Parts: sequence; C-alpha cells; structure tokens
Amino acid sequence: MPEVNPALANRYNKELAKILPSPIRVIDQKFSAIDGIIKLTLGEPDFAVPDHIKAATKAAIDADDSHYAAPHGHLSLREAISDYLVERFDAPRYNPNGEVVVTVGASEALFATMNGLLNAGEKIIIPTPTFPMYEAIADIIGLDVVGINTAPDFVLTPEKLEATLAENPDATAILFNYPSNPTGVTYSAEQIEAIAAILKAHNMLVFSDEIYAELVYDGEHVSMASLLPDQTILISGLSKSHAMTGYRIGYVAGPAALMAHVGKMHQFLVTTAPGPMMAAAEEALRNGRQDAIDMRDTYKQRRDLVMAGLAEAGFTAAQPGGAFYIFAKIPATLNTNDMEFVIDLAETVKLGIAPGSIFGAGGEGYVRLSYAASTEDLTEAVNRLKQYVALKG
Amino acid sequence: MPEVNPALANRYNKELAKILPSPIRVIDQKFSAIDGIIKLTLGEPDFAVPDHIKAATKAAIDADDSHYAAPHGHLSLREAISDYLVERFDAPRYNPNGEVVVTVGASEALFATMNGLLNAGEKIIIPTPTFPMYEAIADIIGLDVVGINTAPDFVLTPEKLEATLAENPDATAILFNYPSNPTGVTYSAEQIEAIAAILKAHNMLVFSDEIYAELVYDGEHVSMASLLPDQTILISGLSKSHAMTGYRIGYVAGPAALMAHVGKMHQFLVTTAPGPMMAAAEEALRNGRQDAIDMRDTYKQRRDLVMAGLAEAGFTAAQPGGAFYIFAKIPATLNTNDMEFVIDLAETVKLGIAPGSIFGAGGEGYVRLSYAASTEDLTEAVNRLKQYVALKG
Repeated sequence: MPEVNPALANRYNKELAKILPSPIRVIDQKFSAIDGIIKLTLGEPDFAVPDHIKAATKAAIDADDSHYAAPHGHLSLREAISDYLVERFDAPRYNPNGEVVVTVGASEALFATMNGLLNAGEKIIIPTPTFPMYEAIADIIGLDVVGINTAPDFVLTPEKLEATLAENPDATAILFNYPSNPTGVTYSAEQIEAIAAILKAHNMLVFSDEIYAELVYDGEHVSMASLLPDQTILISGLSKSHAMTGYRIGYVAGPAALMAHVGKMHQFLVTTAPGPMMAAAEEALRNGRQDAIDMRDTYKQRRDLVMAGLAEAGFTAAQPGGAFYIFAKIPATLNTNDMEFVIDLAETVKLGIAPGSIFGAGGEGYVRLSYAASTEDLTEAVNRLKQYVALKG
Repeated sequence: MPEVNPALANRYNKELAKILPSPIRVIDQKFSAIDGIIKLTLGEPDFAVPDHIKAATKAAIDADDSHYAAPHGHLSLREAISDYLVERFDAPRYNPNGEVVVTVGASEALFATMNGLLNAGEKIIIPTPTFPMYEAIADIIGLDVVGINTAPDFVLTPEKLEATLAENPDATAILFNYPSNPTGVTYSAEQIEAIAAILKAHNMLVFSDEIYAELVYDGEHVSMASLLPDQTILISGLSKSHAMTGYRIGYVAGPAALMAHVGKMHQFLVTTAPGPMMAAAEEALRNGRQDAIDMRDTYKQRRDLVMAGLAEAGFTAAQPGGAFYIFAKIPATLNTNDMEFVIDLAETVKLGIAPGSIFGAGGEGYVRLSYAASTEDLTEAVNRLKQYVALKG
C-alpha cells in the first residue's frame, strides 16, 4: 500500500477529473450495501449465455485461439457481423475487410468512434435523457456537447432536430441511440425516416448506437444504417441481445473511409479483442438468432408485468417499445426530487432504481427501472413500490 | 459496401491521422504475402496456453462468469495480482481495492495510464529505441514526447538521464520499459537503482512497463515498483509470461491517489475486462508460476541458438538479457539501410525481420529478431540469414 509521493498527488488529467464517476454505478454500489435490497439499477441481463455459445467458446480455448487476432477482429466474426446486419436489419453489405471493426464492448466502440472521427472543440449533438457515458467520453475528448431535451415523449421530433441544427450549423456529428437507454422508447419506421431525411439534408455524421436493436417489442427495428448508409457509423454488440455483457464484444460498421480511422484508434486503445470471446460472438450471430428472440419474448412479459404494477402504483411512463428500461414519472403525491426519491425508496422498502436526472435534461422527476431481472424479483419490486406509495403517497 | 457521403470524407481526428499505422504490423502483413516466408517480426509466443489455465477458463464459462465484472476487474484477480507482485518481485503490497486495475492487455493499460494521468501539452520522456505504440498513444493524447537515444548499448545511463532532465525541467513523466522491446536489453540491480535514485531526486512520475519481467535470463528482474513505490505506475500483463496474448489481460498497479484516475479512465475506455479471460489470468498467477519459468528456459535456449547463428553470419548485438528479442547491427559489408535490408532479405531468402529504425532514434542500421518462434523455424531462419550473407556480403 504505497503512499503517493506528495509532489505527484496533483498529477492527473484535469478534464477527466471534472467528469463524475459513472453515476449509475455509484448509486448501484450505494444500494448494494443495503441488506436484502432488490436492485433494478443496472442494464444487466439476468440470463446465462446459451449453452451452444458456451460450447463454441470452450472449443476456441481448446483450439488455442490464444494468439493475437487480426487487429480488427477475427475475419470469420467480421463476416458473421456483415451477414447478420444484412439479414436481420437490412443494412448495406459491409465489407468485412475495412468496414467492420470488432471492439471490447460497445464502450470501446464508442470511444474509438468518437475519438477516431472527431477533434477537440467539435460539436456533437446528443438527445437527452441519455446514457451518461456518451457525454463523459465526449468530455474526455474535449468535444462540445449540444443537448436536445426530448421530454416529455422522449422521441426526438423533426422540429426539435431542425431547431438544434439551425442553432448549431457547425455541429459535425449526432449521437443517436434507439431503442433508448434510459427511456425504453424507440422509433417507428416513419419517425426514424423523418429524422434520417433531415440528417441527410444536413450531411450530418451519425453515430447510431443500436445495441438494443434485438429488443423491440411492438414492431420492427429500422436501422439508421439501412436509411443513411453513407453517413452512419453503426455501433452495436452482443451484450444485450445474448446476455454476454461480461464477454465484452461489440462492433462498429460504416463506410471504409471513416472506418479506417475508427479501426486505427481501436488498435491504439486495445490492440485487438480477446479471441475466445470473439468465437462466442460468432456463434451467437451465426447460430443464436433464436436465443435473442426467446429472451426478447421473456423481457416483453416482464415489461408488461412492471408496466401494470407501475400503473397500479400511480406512475405513468412513455411506452417502452424497446430495450429493457421503463422511464416512469414520479407521481405528484410523492417527493418528485428523483434523487431524494430513489434514496428514500431504497431505505424504506429496499428497492433500488435509478434517478432520472442522472441521464441529463428531461430526466428530472423521473426514475429508470431496468426489467432485466428475474420475474420473481420484478413481482416483489412492484409489491415494494406499492407498499412505499401506500406509506408515503 | 456503402460509399461515404463525400461531404464527410474529411471527418477524422487530425492528430490520429498524423500517426503512422503500427509499422511492425504493416511490415508483418507485407511479409505474410510471401509464400514460405519465416517471420520473426512479431512478439508473439508460439506456446499454447497451459492446460490448467485453459481448464480454469472453461470452468468460468460454465459457472456463468458472463455478467459485468467489477469495473477494476474481479476482486479475486486483483488479490492474485497483489500477492504475485509481492512474492515474485518484492513489490509493495498493493491494496486490491483502489491500487490495482485489470485492463484489456497492456495496450489499454498504457492508454488508461497516460490519458488518466497526463494532460495535452505535458512532456513525457521515452528512451529509444522503443515500442512504437508508446509514442503513438502519447501523440493521440497530445503529449510532447522527449526522446533519449540509448544507442549503442541500449541501456539508459545516469548521465544521459540527468542531461535530459536538466534540459527538460518541465517534463512530468518518464515511460520506462525493461526488459526492453525491441532491444532485449535489461538492467542489472545496480543500473536500475542508479536510474531510480535520479528519478526520485526529480520527483518524476514513472510509468514502468515490465511486461517482460518473467523473461530475464542472466539475473533477477528488479522492479521499479520495489525501488520507487510512491512514484511508480507499474504496467504488466499475462501476454508474454503465459503465452496469453490473445486473452488480452493486463494490469496496472500504483498508489491509490494516482490509480483513481487510471481506473476511471479505464471504465470510460472499456467498462471492464472480460470475465472468463480474467479467470485465466488468476489461474496463471496463482498456480502457473512454473509455466513462466519453463517457457523462459526454452526462450533462453532459443536466444543462444540465434545469437550463435548471428555471430557466424557476422552480426553483433547488445547482450539480450531479457524479453524475446535480439537487436542486431547490420554488418558494414551489407546494405545498412535497415528498411531496404529487411525487404531485400525477405525477397531473397524468405526471412522476415523488423527494421530497427521503426523503433526510433538509435535503431537505424539495426534489425530486430523475435525468437518467440519454434526451434525449427529459428534454426532455418539462421540458415537463411547465412545464405543471404554468403550471397550478398
């Protein structure tokens, strides 16, 4: 346990120091100290990785997939990604050589994309409420973040987008995430086509984080890559679709001229992704498409269970058409300061959920519930929420 | 295969664009196109991962180690790292909570360390010849790199270090790597103690990349962490010691006040490392210490084989006391332009080695041979080199 030399205690990245540590994880850790708590704080599937994927991973270990992979990832995985995106989401056929890069989760995909394509001082538009890591990465890189508050429907409207672009003609990119974390909201074909048309007219570079694309409940996911292929950098991964968060495999796809920079930055960040984990991802994309559908059907039942419970407890929420989150408004009969609310809720009935304000403008007075939890836990969570409302409402 | 929107073709990180793509990999790929070539270009162990480590990895997969690990890595692995560093290298006892961060290989460790602790415009000292990725990462972050040419002995002397510090009183950190890639040179206890004393007097922050610490042939590795614990950020990993390059597990250890920033940056880069790969690393550190010794003994035999062959072919080299590289001077009877030399060598006798100049000042006129290859390949490589010298010398 070495003490730091006092002369060095002040040596750190000053921009990084301004960024709060991941607020969801801070709250999650705080709640973890409460004995018997049910936590619906993190976006972490409770499912196990399907057996055939485990088997493929173990086979890769036995086959000595332990040497450096190609910098952009195993070619066979890049081919599987390219096929999957065409077959599943009508994406353009990305060339596995030069248009697809395998990353260490969507996190590294985001860092490599933003840092590979943008320069300090450039403006990036990020609709809110949103996943806090986007803005944190933008801040580390020195980008100027322009928000668009999408409350109360949490769908970015053409009007709001046009207004923001008119006010910020120098913005160079937009980060778009749907189905959305934290709101669970997604876009219909018509809605996303209207957004794409505006982005096309403005020649905007689009970073489209579609990691929840397999989790769409009330229609079909329409990928930005299918609408605007020449301007879109598609970011996704296996974490949510196949309950593989801990395997850390994500990917990026886009036009070669842009992907060259993303792939180069990726190499300087991590050299390449881990081989056996890539074997898992390949098996998931080639032979595990039904797994994603089966999990989705279960999530849908859980969503309906929680939505019904919330309504009974007096909470309203925008229709969560995708992902595994519900973004609910705290009823006026309770303390609508969302940070105070979630702490009191955790201390009173041992239910941990995330305060909406940590997701940016528009989230104040809301809470995010993740229903990536077991049906038993969700049933009990709803009971505890009702108990709380009966006590304090 | 989407074409990029022409309006976006110029959207990229201008600092990144100035950095050449990893020159070793560019050359390696060029050589790969030559049928029947023997490549000694990359630092990639030819060994398989030991069976007990594979078994532990597969057990972790079966045990559903597929959810998000703690951001700094599995606690049990951080404990294993802390114990290993004390027992093996007389390091201070790092607190697994707050003083150890598990990363995606030493690459991410380097990025998280440099970007977590330094700011654009700060000066970092890097002795050369050196691993090109150090300077690339420094450039991406916007650091000002100050080199120290260590030729012809490739050992940083107290005199050269003092002179550089006197000329650069505003330098805030030094990146030190030993045993060294590309030279294979390492430091005796006396040599490293003399360097540490100077760094202590100057309160320099030291990034000590000791990933080859298990591969020391003619003495004992003396860690900077044992000499200068309050100023050192120790960077290492399992890639070289246990032939686990493709598993991508590295780590960083240092005083908590500094590690807080490294760990925070790490989270924004990759969230956390992959769980099953961390289980492999834990098994290697807890129960695989003999594996590293066995591999080291084999590398030593290979080193001696190649050194003898080089001498017969008229090449001289600084004593390679560690790692698995030999940095040899091209005899004056041959073309001493190292880039032209390695290309002609590859085309003439199908032997691929790295040109010294890509490793920075001091490397001109040298070549790097990696002996992390099979004994058969190394024997044949030496024969081909002799053939070449007979033809062109």
